[in-house]
Amino acid sequence: MDEVRVVPVCGIPDVHPGDDLGALIVSAIVRDERRLGAGDVVVVAQKVVSKAEGRVVQLDGVEPSARAKEWAAACGKDPRVVETVLRESRRVVRMERGVLIAETAHGFVCANAGVDASNVPVGSVTLLPLDADASAERLRARFTAAFGVSVGVIVADTFGRPWREGAVNVAIGVAGLRPLLDYRGCADPYGRRLQSTVIATADEIASAAELVMRKTSRTPAAIVCGADCLGEGSSRALVRDRSLDLFR
Amino acid sequence: MDEVRVVPVCGIPDVHPGDDLGALIVSAIVRDERRLGAGDVVVVAQKVVSKAEGRVVQLDGVEPSARAKEWAAACGKDPRVVETVLRESRRVVRMERGVLIAETAHGFVCANAGVDASNVPVGSVTLLPLDADASAERLRARFTAAFGVSVGVIVADTFGRPWREGAVNVAIGVAGLRPLLDYRGCADPYGRRLQSTVIATADEIASAAELVMRKTSRTPAAIVCGADCLGEGSSRALVRDRSLDLFR
Repeated sequence: MDEVRVVPVCGIPDVHPGDDLGALIVSAIVRDERRLGAGDVVVVAQKVVSKAEGRVVQLDGVEPSARAKEWAAACGKDPRVVETVLRESRRVVRMERGVLIAETAHGFVCANAGVDASNVPVGSVTLLPLDADASAERLRARFTAAFGVSVGVIVADTFGRPWREGAVNVAIGVAGLRPLLDYRGCADPYGRRLQSTVIATADEIASAAELVMRKTSRTPAAIVCGADCLGEGSSRALVRDRSLDLFR
Repeated sequence: MDEVRVVPVCGIPDVHPGDDLGALIVSAIVRDERRLGAGDVVVVAQKVVSKAEGRVVQLDGVEPSARAKEWAAACGKDPRVVETVLRESRRVVRMERGVLIAETAHGFVCANAGVDASNVPVGSVTLLPLDADASAERLRARFTAAFGVSVGVIVADTFGRPWREGAVNVAIGVAGLRPLLDYRGCADPYGRRLQSTVIATADEIASAAELVMRKTSRTPAAIVCGADCLGEGSSRALVRDRSLDLFR
């Protein structure tokens, strides 16, 4: 097994609704005198994907419901943000102690249904992409055309977890890669068949990329080389079915 | 921000109780004509740490309790393994549908309280290290002495997560590094103070390392270069306090 490299894509300008994000990333890579190689995975922050796709809500135009106002008052939040979170939620999983954990239409369970005020102009918030697999696929096609090689793309966001402190970057959209690596039925070195080992490769790649992306440094994309995961897949494979989930 | 590299440490032999794991890893690095650089983080799989420390249970000597027998019969498991899991558990969080999620003495919440039968001789299971921060610190001292530079060490295990399919590698012991990166109070490029962004850097580094460690390929260690996280810290910072946890 060779080494894995995680390379930041620097110099991507501030992204606005309607921008051609794929072209901006390709330009940044080329300007840095780099190129994509076969098998590389480009990890792109959800925030810039959402901005480019116009998934931005101006809070001025949001009329909060009574429920949103009540919860917002109880925990000192902006009722228009809470209203936006509730609109993005298929189901509220926890709403207590100032924390709102919700299930989105995609099935993701995360804080504030992915609605986020950081790294956007004051007075607005971003929503998760409507279909981040499709977002990833559009970027993948752009990169393949620009560099003439097969690559994978991950759209990633930082999610908190139960039981552990700190958020980690995870994949919310994938294209051109296998998000899970399934060892079930493989033998370990002692000849025992592994029973239950499935690794969330796409989430691990997203986390590796975060190490160079960082929240405040305007580096919303990274290239992960050597992860050996190209193939077919959807981020839906990363979402545990509600009927199998013991914590929903 | 420079790139991050993840380098597998190949050629570590099968590890047995009492082995000097630090020496085995140093030998493997040197044999590969590599060395550790200042700021590198060595990620070591829990499995080899547990083996070297003798945290291995021979199932022959385990007398299952009535509760262990009952649960084992209900879901087709080895009652001696279930007994071992219950002994390692401070509290059972979920015990249904064949899945046993438990809180360990360290506060980790994970499947089977970290008891695992893979990659050990048939008829035995490994337990988590008693104090994986101490295990990491012993390895760190060894590496610093061998290579004359400051490095960090992470002892890592693959944990499943609620809501998402697939396990990811996380840090269960750390030495010489800051496990969390706290952005609270920092400004984003729009001048907004980030409110709640804490990143679990140690978990992301563990996940990055897993991309080259892989379960079946006998690569129980990896070197992560360029992650820029050296300092002081404990894996306890990664465990959410039960009183703050909405899912325990």
